[in-house]
Amino acid sequence: MLDKNDRLAQELRTRFEAAGVFTVNLVSSPGAGKTALLEETLRRMQARGLRVAAIVGDLATENDARRLARSGAPVRQIETGGLCHLEADLVARRLEGWTLTDFDFLFIENVGNLVCPSDYDLGEALRVALLATTEGEDKPLKYPPMFHSADVVMLTKCDLSAAVEFDRAAAVAAIEAIAPHARILETSARTGAGIDAWIDLLVERRAAVMRASHRS
Amino acid sequence: MLDKNDRLAQELRTRFEAAGVFTVNLVSSPGAGKTALLEETLRRMQARGLRVAAIVGDLATENDARRLARSGAPVRQIETGGLCHLEADLVARRLEGWTLTDFDFLFIENVGNLVCPSDYDLGEALRVALLATTEGEDKPLKYPPMFHSADVVMLTKCDLSAAVEFDRAAAVAAIEAIAPHARILETSARTGAGIDAWIDLLVERRAAVMRASHRS
Repeated sequence: MLDKNDRLAQELRTRFEAAGVFTVNLVSSPGAGKTALLEETLRRMQARGLRVAAIVGDLATENDARRLARSGAPVRQIETGGLCHLEADLVARRLEGWTLTDFDFLFIENVGNLVCPSDYDLGEALRVALLATTEGEDKPLKYPPMFHSADVVMLTKCDLSAAVEFDRAAAVAAIEAIAPHARILETSARTGAGIDAWIDLLVERRAAVMRASHRS
Repeated sequence: MLDKNDRLAQELRTRFEAAGVFTVNLVSSPGAGKTALLEETLRRMQARGLRVAAIVGDLATENDARRLARSGAPVRQIETGGLCHLEADLVARRLEGWTLTDFDFLFIENVGNLVCPSDYDLGEALRVALLATTEGEDKPLKYPPMFHSADVVMLTKCDLSAAVEFDRAAAVAAIEAIAPHARILETSARTGAGIDAWIDLLVERRAAVMRASHRS
């Protein structure tokens, strides 16, 4: 199963790079704020003239696709039924009919789950694990594979830090213990704090990939 | 796999009932407040003279067992490694050395995951799904199997309702759409709101099971 997924993911990665699409896999607990982050991200990126699209995974409902489509960006939903994570072939099938060269960035919002998605490469260029301030500081220690596999760990709902007595230093220490390689960002989709810095990071990372692929 | 788990779970259920132990399986997203609820529940139940114990599941760390042991109750940790849910045989093995007749109530805190634990009966008398006000109102619609399988749905972190603009009516409608049979409770482990009503419910349900088993 995993071998087949890894092969398909590698094919997807090659397609994404050839088309100049920088693909981001967003993982987190249910309710950590993936969709709220994406709403604000899609809106601001389009205002900057960037071409964005999104695929959102849930066991059931098209709620998230409807929310995100209001940004005007192309959005598609994957309903997984009982499946606890997205797999590369589900993503590949949902891409059908899209012309990848129409997009600069593709966001894939995974099923809300801090365990199962960690093993499934979706061909992304960047894996981002969200950790809401409302969830507690020790989640990276309790769910190490997911955080260890992330390139970026984003603290979300930072506007609620005081209300939930969030211990930022403890959270950062937990992230650094499990994912010392990861870049840490802090955002609030509600206030907009940190969202422009997040978009700057995406734009820089895409430019770096494009430069590397032109050289090769 | 599931058939074997169901058989083992049924054996556990028979053992629990014979020993007079009312067993509760707590499921939720990571960070919905299972451990905070249990801390307060174990403390108050012991103050009422009830004999309680807990088994807590996590991929890694003994953090939760340490937190809960401060209540003075017997507590054991299951570290699942990569496994995204508890299974009946993990619970059965962790019971070894305990005399079940020493307990009136046994709480099993599952791995934080709104998908995978739904299929795994642990022999519990009551399955309780927690939904934190910080997670968003539509989680029952997005993760239907977990909420559908619950006997009780508990709204947690109710002290944060205003701060997160929690739409209580929407949450209740979502729960009732997926789990019309479920009793809905509202709690805050921080303020203590709703905790005594939750304990009353547990005491009543245990008494009902004991009466039924005496009749049979």
